[in-house]
Amino acid sequence: MKVGDQEYQTIWFDNGHPEKVSIIDQRYLPFDFKIEDLTSLKDTYTAIKEMHVRGAPVIGACAAWGLYLAAIDPTNYNEMDEALTNAANFLKSARPTAVNLEHAVDNSLKEIVKGCSREEKIQIAREFAQDYCVAEIKSCQKIGQFGLSLIEEIAKQKAGEPVNILTHCNAGWLACIDYGTALAPVYSAFYKGIDVHVWVSETRPRNQGTRLTAWELKQAGVPYTLIVDNTAGHLMQNGMVDVCLVGSDRTTAHGDVANKIGTYLKALAANDNQVPFYVAMPSSSIDFSIKDGRKEIPIEERDQREIHHIEGQLEDWVVELRLSPDGAKAANYSFDITPSRLITKLITERGICDASEDGIKGLFPEKF
Amino acid sequence: MKVGDQEYQTIWFDNGHPEKVSIIDQRYLPFDFKIEDLTSLKDTYTAIKEMHVRGAPVIGACAAWGLYLAAIDPTNYNEMDEALTNAANFLKSARPTAVNLEHAVDNSLKEIVKGCSREEKIQIAREFAQDYCVAEIKSCQKIGQFGLSLIEEIAKQKAGEPVNILTHCNAGWLACIDYGTALAPVYSAFYKGIDVHVWVSETRPRNQGTRLTAWELKQAGVPYTLIVDNTAGHLMQNGMVDVCLVGSDRTTAHGDVANKIGTYLKALAANDNQVPFYVAMPSSSIDFSIKDGRKEIPIEERDQREIHHIEGQLEDWVVELRLSPDGAKAANYSFDITPSRLITKLITERGICDASEDGIKGLFPEKF
Repeated sequence: MKVGDQEYQTIWFDNGHPEKVSIIDQRYLPFDFKIEDLTSLKDTYTAIKEMHVRGAPVIGACAAWGLYLAAIDPTNYNEMDEALTNAANFLKSARPTAVNLEHAVDNSLKEIVKGCSREEKIQIAREFAQDYCVAEIKSCQKIGQFGLSLIEEIAKQKAGEPVNILTHCNAGWLACIDYGTALAPVYSAFYKGIDVHVWVSETRPRNQGTRLTAWELKQAGVPYTLIVDNTAGHLMQNGMVDVCLVGSDRTTAHGDVANKIGTYLKALAANDNQVPFYVAMPSSSIDFSIKDGRKEIPIEERDQREIHHIEGQLEDWVVELRLSPDGAKAANYSFDITPSRLITKLITERGICDASEDGIKGLFPEKF
Repeated sequence: MKVGDQEYQTIWFDNGHPEKVSIIDQRYLPFDFKIEDLTSLKDTYTAIKEMHVRGAPVIGACAAWGLYLAAIDPTNYNEMDEALTNAANFLKSARPTAVNLEHAVDNSLKEIVKGCSREEKIQIAREFAQDYCVAEIKSCQKIGQFGLSLIEEIAKQKAGEPVNILTHCNAGWLACIDYGTALAPVYSAFYKGIDVHVWVSETRPRNQGTRLTAWELKQAGVPYTLIVDNTAGHLMQNGMVDVCLVGSDRTTAHGDVANKIGTYLKALAANDNQVPFYVAMPSSSIDFSIKDGRKEIPIEERDQREIHHIEGQLEDWVVELRLSPDGAKAANYSFDITPSRLITKLITERGICDASEDGIKGLFPEKF
């Protein structure tokens, strides 16, 4: 997608500089646009853990590149398979909820160990990461096309009025390599000339809605309005939302969805007001090995500092403020589980299906 | 309630200084504790509109004192009834949702016009405001006693484990003259030695949870944990909340509740997880003249600046940061409606009742 006049992806590799991988360091948006070069396993681990990149698909890509950077590290020259197995476990420990991380790392490692020489292993690791990114981009494009049909359907009923789409957190191109998951259909509709308007929910504590989704939509020129997370129910109660579109960090084989904390509350409001609630994700976010989201998906707990403090712009500086009284304690759960019963449909790269075992099996039979 | 070693109410009048009314200016909490003297109708209007005081009961009290300050104003000497009628309308325009404001002003004015002289009108206005405050304090004490029985019941079942109470916004003593509505039962339980723990939801955009409820509970020594508004569903899904207790800005005769934006989402989550959801309010917050909350309660829309900016402490200063990209648009609805079907019971100064016409009529037959 474009930033100003230039096309960007969230993570990229330049064959002319095989010693590094570059990312948009999302911690600085929307106040500053900064590129970071990652040159080691540790760099990729930190980028994932400290959320220089975030969003399930780009976390997976960053981890795949992390294994490549571990492979080219000369200190891993001896016992390379053991070193890369350790590297894989290290990367997987960065964040627990998004299954893409685990998938990318495990699948890459499985291929790497087949390599007969150091050079071959490096080549496999690089090609895996490159192919992974290409595949994820294609999946997001497909999600955009399938999701577009749903927005077109609503646009017909609205007869010229804008289609009001509510999203949570950031499931746009910044969360992916390009295009986005939940926002891919929005961009497809917008570029096709459909009148869309996005309700962007702030997404405390890290404000990915305010900071990232608003910035993305602003770059693309898509009309949007910011709301605090509390406001979603009121809007739906008053017919101001036509459809909810969110992403997923891990979806079970039965269609339960782990996504940014607060998603479940929005799904409840959608259900209470007969607003369709769609979850868009590439199959790399589906964990076919588990069924029950609440029992089986680990929910990350992050530092309570993210609740006590907030970052923003003070005149020309970006600073952090303390919000709460001294000594206050906070609990910072990063995700919640939306049970499949509250989800209208899933949107994947293979099409749209029910959030159920049968629905998912219909699109991905080989996984069952 | 105590602030440090000293007893405070949120608003008070000193017979020795009949030219002023004093309030705790809540805009500075928790960073600073400031007293403001109000000496005119305009001061009370500003205090309500700009939220130097907030919370339905204290808004009502402040408005009653506003009429008193209008009554003693020498420029209202002639055509006093007309001036005070204008003052009443002016006060009622400060904020639309809390019905206490309307009730207090209308009832005070009704009495004032009966006065035969300026002195008598001033006396009536003063006595009305004083009596109003005394009655509200008594109501809150009663709510505390009735609500205590509900917490005691849960405490029995928890057999020594803390009772986990989730609240939203601030419905503590800062929202009232003293004691609180939703927090009155919590204080009663705590002072009786029951092991309680409060989940304090931040309450964006103005963070009354973080800034006021956390501060109140800290002063009183009640254990609490801050969460962002998004987290309530996750906690309830995982058995971490035993009861929800919130206040109300206006409750219809059929039991629909207008309260701080986001209350409805919490009620949905409580309902989905069989967590009891109680709303505590004095009858001054019940609007017996209306039935349907969604159709009949006006929802205040406040300045979008409250969403784009946030206030907090930077080292020793309190400053305001910009959170969103330049040019972003925001919608700032202050309240939402929780339909009576999602409310387990109402807690009032006359007891506990169903959130229904029959329930409310049972406690307040004279109002029907």
